[in-house]
Amino acid sequence: MNDRSGSKPGYGQNQASQLPRIVILGAGFGGLTCARALQAAPAEVTLVDQRNFHLFQPLLYQVATAALSPADIATPIRRILRNQINAKVVLGHVEAIDRQERTVRLRENGRLVAYDILVIATGARHSYFGHEDWEAFAPGLKQIEDALDIRNRVLDALERAEATEDADERQRLLSFAVIGGGPTGVELAGAIAELAKIELAQESRTMHGLAAHIVLIEAGPQILPVFVPSLADKARRSLEQLGVEVLTNSMVEHCDSEGVIAAGKRIEARTLIWAAGVAASPAAQWLDVEPDRAGRVRVLGDLSLPGDPTVFVIGDTAAVYRPDGRPVPGIAPAAKQEGNYVAELLLRRLNGSVSIDGRGGAAGMQAQPEFHYHHAGDLATIGHKSAVLDFGWIRLSGLLAWLLWGCVHIFFLISFRNRMVVMLGWLWSYFASDRGARLITGSGREL
Amino acid sequence: MNDRSGSKPGYGQNQASQLPRIVILGAGFGGLTCARALQAAPAEVTLVDQRNFHLFQPLLYQVATAALSPADIATPIRRILRNQINAKVVLGHVEAIDRQERTVRLRENGRLVAYDILVIATGARHSYFGHEDWEAFAPGLKQIEDALDIRNRVLDALERAEATEDADERQRLLSFAVIGGGPTGVELAGAIAELAKIELAQESRTMHGLAAHIVLIEAGPQILPVFVPSLADKARRSLEQLGVEVLTNSMVEHCDSEGVIAAGKRIEARTLIWAAGVAASPAAQWLDVEPDRAGRVRVLGDLSLPGDPTVFVIGDTAAVYRPDGRPVPGIAPAAKQEGNYVAELLLRRLNGSVSIDGRGGAAGMQAQPEFHYHHAGDLATIGHKSAVLDFGWIRLSGLLAWLLWGCVHIFFLISFRNRMVVMLGWLWSYFASDRGARLITGSGREL
Repeated sequence: MNDRSGSKPGYGQNQASQLPRIVILGAGFGGLTCARALQAAPAEVTLVDQRNFHLFQPLLYQVATAALSPADIATPIRRILRNQINAKVVLGHVEAIDRQERTVRLRENGRLVAYDILVIATGARHSYFGHEDWEAFAPGLKQIEDALDIRNRVLDALERAEATEDADERQRLLSFAVIGGGPTGVELAGAIAELAKIELAQESRTMHGLAAHIVLIEAGPQILPVFVPSLADKARRSLEQLGVEVLTNSMVEHCDSEGVIAAGKRIEARTLIWAAGVAASPAAQWLDVEPDRAGRVRVLGDLSLPGDPTVFVIGDTAAVYRPDGRPVPGIAPAAKQEGNYVAELLLRRLNGSVSIDGRGGAAGMQAQPEFHYHHAGDLATIGHKSAVLDFGWIRLSGLLAWLLWGCVHIFFLISFRNRMVVMLGWLWSYFASDRGARLITGSGREL
Repeated sequence: MNDRSGSKPGYGQNQASQLPRIVILGAGFGGLTCARALQAAPAEVTLVDQRNFHLFQPLLYQVATAALSPADIATPIRRILRNQINAKVVLGHVEAIDRQERTVRLRENGRLVAYDILVIATGARHSYFGHEDWEAFAPGLKQIEDALDIRNRVLDALERAEATEDADERQRLLSFAVIGGGPTGVELAGAIAELAKIELAQESRTMHGLAAHIVLIEAGPQILPVFVPSLADKARRSLEQLGVEVLTNSMVEHCDSEGVIAAGKRIEARTLIWAAGVAASPAAQWLDVEPDRAGRVRVLGDLSLPGDPTVFVIGDTAAVYRPDGRPVPGIAPAAKQEGNYVAELLLRRLNGSVSIDGRGGAAGMQAQPEFHYHHAGDLATIGHKSAVLDFGWIRLSGLLAWLLWGCVHIFFLISFRNRMVVMLGWLWSYFASDRGARLITGSGREL
């Protein structure tokens, strides 16, 4: 492999015997797509992540509501890359980045990973807008552990409602509030409604006839704000058919162990879930640059850091805008497009006359085409028989939209095995209204 | 329903308006089988468990070695019993039993569950024979959480071996010791060997060519002591082909974070797993009776507590013997037979002339047929292409035995969905050598 690199121009700042080192932080949709698109690159690609698996986040709410198991939506990174000989995987937590020395320091024994090119794709966490103390009452949903935590809370509340003989307490235990009316909030509220229905109507002896009370609380005037009002209305009606109460124009002002206060009104609910906001990972801090209001790193049109063509930032960590000034949304297709764009840019540098770090080479700095985001459409699902979908040229709601949503998600699930398991699990749950993963784990080991 | 009970004789000690209350503690193989066999009984059946799911323990080692997900081998108890109208499920931890008052006290708010008949089927935990401090170094495998803990330890050791540059440290990280050569130990050792092979040979860039070192340590002269020596030998050779070193006549004398001392010899291994012994749940203590050496409750030939025909003890919690004096083994078929036996005995009491509590009724105490254990056979699997199997009339080893083992286990998995998922997962892993559930979870959330 070293022969190949030695015969190419443009590696002036590396040792002649070494391939350029492309280090990608984060194996989410952006980072993983970038790594895979560099498959044929004459470079040494290192993918760093704190977890050993890639997570298919759009289906995480199905783990939180016991329809899927963690392994159904998570794939070991090494397996995804096992046939890519120029890639290796490093598990670790980023602690600092030294742009002078071009190294990433990991928390694990202070290990240093040297780069010629750095691609930062470390995603986002949920944000409580300064009310971090709410997290204890209203957990968010970003990682596998969050999903299992929410699953345990929901199932535990249903079990405790079954056990109590106090009717008021039972009603509080059967009340759930989901905060945030974006796709995650809508999907969670619908799935919790269905889960509670199974537990209450079909399998409980003592709660027959009781109904759970699920409230979806949105600060803005409309749930699913990215959708046109007519589709958002259809989603709202589908939710209401499942028994979900939808509150709009209701900014949450307070959370505690007994409920929330939204728009001045107290809502009793023993189980709260936060789906209201995200904040970027601390990449700006690592890079020592000023983040935007949402904590994201501002980038140039080619997704590189202003003044440093060796560093790229993509996905939820980057502040990227469309030509009309609207932000590129924080969804998987956007992150994947950005990952592909950066990979193509690097391939051009590797194969062309520009140095890999963009700082010279035979022909000097060339003008690169800027990143252009293509918005394929918006999708959200409500329960397991309805969805809303807007592809621009087509708008759908109801069962047909749900089936299309299912196909799209299964298609994009990375591993074949996962596709098969998820598909069969869905077919089964569609016909049997089953929830196979209703396990309360992580407690009660004493007996 | 009360009309039916009112028209039957033998409920003298209950209120006439109430069905006899059969309370079953534990929803393992014994308790669940007993509950289901009472489906047609004119009784109120209450199944108490600390977890909301039934666990198919024989496949737990596959969760520990990343081949299956928890939900593949666990089924919500309420779902299993959802069509059984005389049964209800209570989640709780047993704290005490009052045989005078005929109540079980649960830890949850001191809740009391009243019984006319009590069936105790609370199983066993692993035992360290007085060395409970070894548990921190050598976790055992009885519950879902144990399996996930072991899975995390094994995968984490492989990842750290990949990360280190110290060759000695790497070898220690790649060394695994399984203590106990019964079926669980044999199955774990084989599965870890295969898992390590995938990680090392196929997916790691830096450890290509390195081999993991797996030691199986058995105190007795033979692994799989219930098998005839010729089959145990075949199992040993299958293990050795997978790269497992088998040490017999090696009693473990010490465990620490760096390995074990067995038969005076130090064995370095960063990851230890305990599969050497079990102790019964504290039922003897609840009942205030003297347990046997393994902590089990001694029972009469009809599995009832001596002197108290209202209490039965079954499964791993009971000391039950065959006519030749050998103990009934602690395996699922034995627990299920005992559960069925007690259910039949209770059905006879309910339909006959004996009082439900066995203490009188029209014809007084009748002679009941004693429990008779039928041993169908022994099975153990080594890796994913070999097994040993002894049904008495037939003895098999190798691939054919493995296929039979697979069929037997899939057949007995309780829910149809689980059967389907496990079967497909196995077919897939058989053809692709895949390990879909290789997720390190529960850590590393900080980024």
